[in-house]
Amino acid sequence: MTQTTKKPILPTITSPRDLDGMSLPDLERLAGEIRDVLCNLVSARSAHFASNLGVVELCLALHQTFDFLHDRLIWDTGHQIYPHKLITGRYPQFSTIRTKGGLMGYPNPEESDYDLFVTGHAGSSVSTAVGLASGDRLLRDEENRWTVAVIGDGAFPSGVVYEALCNIRESGKRLLVVLNDNKMSICPRVGGMADYLDRLRMSGAYSGIKGEIVKTLQNIPMLGDPVERMLTQIKEAAKAGLHGGMLFEELGMRYVGPIDGHNVALVRKYLRMVRKTDGPVLLHVVTEKGHGFHPATQDPVLFHAPPQFSRCENGELQMKKSGGRAYTNAASEAIHVAMTASDKVTVLTAAMCQGNKLERVRDDFPDRFFDTGICEAHAVAFAAGQAKVGMRPIVDIYSTFLQRSFDHIFQEVALQNLPVTFMLDRGGLSGPDGATHHGVFDLGYLRLFPHMTVMAPGDEHDLASMLPFALQHNGPCAIRYPKAAAVTVAGERAPIEHGTAEVLRRGPDGLILCGGALLPDCLAAAEQLAGEGLELTVVNARFIKPLDTKTILPLVADSPFTVTVEEAALAGGFGSVVLEALADAGQTAPVRRLGIGDHYVEHGEREELLADLGLDTAGIAQACREQSQACAPGQGVS
Amino acid sequence: MTQTTKKPILPTITSPRDLDGMSLPDLERLAGEIRDVLCNLVSARSAHFASNLGVVELCLALHQTFDFLHDRLIWDTGHQIYPHKLITGRYPQFSTIRTKGGLMGYPNPEESDYDLFVTGHAGSSVSTAVGLASGDRLLRDEENRWTVAVIGDGAFPSGVVYEALCNIRESGKRLLVVLNDNKMSICPRVGGMADYLDRLRMSGAYSGIKGEIVKTLQNIPMLGDPVERMLTQIKEAAKAGLHGGMLFEELGMRYVGPIDGHNVALVRKYLRMVRKTDGPVLLHVVTEKGHGFHPATQDPVLFHAPPQFSRCENGELQMKKSGGRAYTNAASEAIHVAMTASDKVTVLTAAMCQGNKLERVRDDFPDRFFDTGICEAHAVAFAAGQAKVGMRPIVDIYSTFLQRSFDHIFQEVALQNLPVTFMLDRGGLSGPDGATHHGVFDLGYLRLFPHMTVMAPGDEHDLASMLPFALQHNGPCAIRYPKAAAVTVAGERAPIEHGTAEVLRRGPDGLILCGGALLPDCLAAAEQLAGEGLELTVVNARFIKPLDTKTILPLVADSPFTVTVEEAALAGGFGSVVLEALADAGQTAPVRRLGIGDHYVEHGEREELLADLGLDTAGIAQACREQSQACAPGQGVS
Repeated sequence: MTQTTKKPILPTITSPRDLDGMSLPDLERLAGEIRDVLCNLVSARSAHFASNLGVVELCLALHQTFDFLHDRLIWDTGHQIYPHKLITGRYPQFSTIRTKGGLMGYPNPEESDYDLFVTGHAGSSVSTAVGLASGDRLLRDEENRWTVAVIGDGAFPSGVVYEALCNIRESGKRLLVVLNDNKMSICPRVGGMADYLDRLRMSGAYSGIKGEIVKTLQNIPMLGDPVERMLTQIKEAAKAGLHGGMLFEELGMRYVGPIDGHNVALVRKYLRMVRKTDGPVLLHVVTEKGHGFHPATQDPVLFHAPPQFSRCENGELQMKKSGGRAYTNAASEAIHVAMTASDKVTVLTAAMCQGNKLERVRDDFPDRFFDTGICEAHAVAFAAGQAKVGMRPIVDIYSTFLQRSFDHIFQEVALQNLPVTFMLDRGGLSGPDGATHHGVFDLGYLRLFPHMTVMAPGDEHDLASMLPFALQHNGPCAIRYPKAAAVTVAGERAPIEHGTAEVLRRGPDGLILCGGALLPDCLAAAEQLAGEGLELTVVNARFIKPLDTKTILPLVADSPFTVTVEEAALAGGFGSVVLEALADAGQTAPVRRLGIGDHYVEHGEREELLADLGLDTAGIAQACREQSQACAPGQGVS
Repeated sequence: MTQTTKKPILPTITSPRDLDGMSLPDLERLAGEIRDVLCNLVSARSAHFASNLGVVELCLALHQTFDFLHDRLIWDTGHQIYPHKLITGRYPQFSTIRTKGGLMGYPNPEESDYDLFVTGHAGSSVSTAVGLASGDRLLRDEENRWTVAVIGDGAFPSGVVYEALCNIRESGKRLLVVLNDNKMSICPRVGGMADYLDRLRMSGAYSGIKGEIVKTLQNIPMLGDPVERMLTQIKEAAKAGLHGGMLFEELGMRYVGPIDGHNVALVRKYLRMVRKTDGPVLLHVVTEKGHGFHPATQDPVLFHAPPQFSRCENGELQMKKSGGRAYTNAASEAIHVAMTASDKVTVLTAAMCQGNKLERVRDDFPDRFFDTGICEAHAVAFAAGQAKVGMRPIVDIYSTFLQRSFDHIFQEVALQNLPVTFMLDRGGLSGPDGATHHGVFDLGYLRLFPHMTVMAPGDEHDLASMLPFALQHNGPCAIRYPKAAAVTVAGERAPIEHGTAEVLRRGPDGLILCGGALLPDCLAAAEQLAGEGLELTVVNARFIKPLDTKTILPLVADSPFTVTVEEAALAGGFGSVVLEALADAGQTAPVRRLGIGDHYVEHGEREELLADLGLDTAGIAQACREQSQACAPGQGVS
């Protein structure tokens, strides 16, 4: 941390142009001030932290070298956007970041012209950069407008990056990909590309000797054929082998680096050099996740998005206790139990070991734990292969990130009817991360595929019981649960059987059909309405697909009204399933669907967002009251 | 073609074990017989051809080297499966291939234990192979069971391949990836990986000299430091540089090749060598698409899946005329018109230049035509970048292959509300290709995303009018149309306006709501029923999203019954949209949905399949008759 009595610089920065001509000492001081702001923020609330500490100098050098109202800048994945926000006019609002109505924790074009794309899913920056550069070339001046994508080494193994690299020449000559290599994904990164980058980092040490060798080779006297030809080949080979980044060069980019990403003068020098040359260029910048804050560099996994902590600058940090047991904990415990019970069970995740709290699973079952890095498509096809030979793989990925695997869920799993179990964490509203992280489309898209069973636990008891059910079921199953505190509904509970719902409360005055973990709110609403004289039936649907029509359709027929409740997009969601079942049975009935309408949901605390959407106890109760009146005798629906 | 008077070998092959100990001349004769069968097939009906001619020797060598009831074999993309089918006991049924009830044109585990996965979408073979090998290692004997994935160079740039290569070590030591390099995708292949493979092929010429150079280098006397160190580096660099396939080696595989894939003895020798070593290994096999049939080697694009032709062996081939103008033609013409009208319009496809009939677009607008290769995810994010800077990109990809882009349609296009137009060819039943190629989930998944407009033309007139509409609409649009002959409905037509349907016929006795190109059948059914005294209203919905509730809901209310018709999965499809709109308006009515139920549809002619599903004129008329009776006064729906 920079301690200074001089007047702070950061509050005076209203646009990146205020960096023009700023001296190196002032840039370094500014970097320190940015780190102070980041530390203060994270001592106030949970936020992305270590990755932001790692890109401070890179961000300053980029904005000093380019003018991103004219040039184009894309931050891949986007959670390292904080320094960029601080110097693009958003310092005054910065304390609102990740709160409802405040700044988004990701790039957001609605906040600033310096943000081009809302990014939250990894790996697409190179493709969008190719598109931006290609569009600029077609529409405008090719010669003086650069497009820059900044992508972390964690996102780099994502398949779409490779697709973009294979197509990089479509971008023309003014494209720069900055590979921000901090040796980390959200979890420690893995795989062939990770190892390759490690070798490149090491090869940097050789860069001094390289020129000399090439010079020496050039002085080898030319001899007669075939020896001459052989030596020419040796020379070419030596040049190639000594040249780091050949892999990228093979795909059509110039490779520059690796360089120290915390030396702002050096980064700036390289960026200026790149700017004077023809691209496309890949600049390999080595940074340290958590740089400038010792505890974060020591434990960058914990400090990726740490819980709020109370002090910033010594070893005695007070981490705020997390709010108790979450569905994520329940899921990882259920996985641990399943893996203990059968050595056929494997678990695959995509850089979400920490987020999905799989550390104990990884440590206790290292042979059956697979972290593919941010490669969701591969993870699903990989699981299909395991299932084909008799294993029982569990794919444990956030709902929103599993979208990357849509086609592989179709072809490799559902079409082949293979017993792969999908655990979709953060199904529903993910909270402060916002629209890219909400997992609201999963019910709608998973149920499209024949053979697929889709479950949404009503509480922790369901979740714990659904996993063993799925693992013995002869076909693909998905279990989606929210980012929320785990709750268990009291009372005796029916066992999980394929396609069966559970009736938790009976009353003649109306019906609530709950498709997932808003069940406690549904029960609370029913309780509240009972106090008002309305006795409702409440059904815990459990299975979105196949729907328990045997239980549900007669209840709908016997109830004056039906309200469906889901923490998911209404388009194609649970309520839609109920409507389809009714229509297919030739049954008509008034059904009101509560869920998420045809709009993207902003960021904020899950409870705030649910209340706004009418998906809390009060909202559900109010909808039931309204339906009770609308469907009362004499008010008949058309 | 092999002309022989000896007794044919192929009819005697009932399993690959009949190849055991077969002499080289007999293997070569068998290869010729397989080619004859392929030629005879394609003179009888349209089928995948050139790629199958290219893998005959490779297929024989693989089956002679491995036992794929014990070892594992995956054919990526799968349309090159014919020789494999011929020698795995399916010769007697081979003439039924791609016909309803006959053999599938892709691998199919229901036909044979030698087929592990139904594959039709490209690129997933390496991932599933990693999964198979990893599962076998966990469950069984690691040491003696090999897993082999055969993947073409066209599929190789697909992102999921790279994700799998980055994770290749999870497979253990018994994994072989055969890169079947014919320098072709379905279209001529493009991009950085294609160029890299070209260089590797050329470097093969150097393989003779390579060992010698390394030997020479080893004999260089060791000198004092630092010269010694420098020379050591030269030696390492030279070895690396001389060694082809470094890119793959960097990612953790051994690289072997390139070798001539039509020399069965050579391929067999290399496979046996690989089998004795530790993997994972990438074996680079160079083949010729169409090998052994001169016209096909001269025009492998035409002969990828040629129309039926009448003779096989001279230059005077009689190609069967295709069945007239298809929606695909109408779409490519509309694109050409749009690109002529505005230089902001670009078109992006993913190796489907031929399938989408974009040759004229490519030739007339080379600067604004982009073929990404089989990289659908990249194509969509690429288009988003272009749209962001003011271009009007059209993404023209088969419906089923666009599934690979699901997450990018979400994040890069819909969430950002960018004006990208998706043209989904083969929306609906694709015919003889079967389940992997039917595009039946598109309505269900595209409508999930806020900001997205989803259109389904009722005829060619609609299609031609929807594209200009989409290109001036301020947001993402999708237009999906079938693989079928283009039809234009007669009469005066309403212009395309956002979210508006068109009433084409009015009658008091019932309502048909048509969501797409089955419109002529709906009109014909109505015509037929009029002859029986039932006068129906027929609506061409045009917009699946947003639905024209203003037109449709009153019609539903005024009609004794409603039937929805779509060539799409019923789960979440057009009928579901209608049900949602009714429920949200508090309106109840009997609605019968016609479409594709919760099962995968087999291969066959589109018309046959539609008839089976009750989606032809007769089926639609019959459903209306039934509804008319069920909903008659006194038969009221519950």
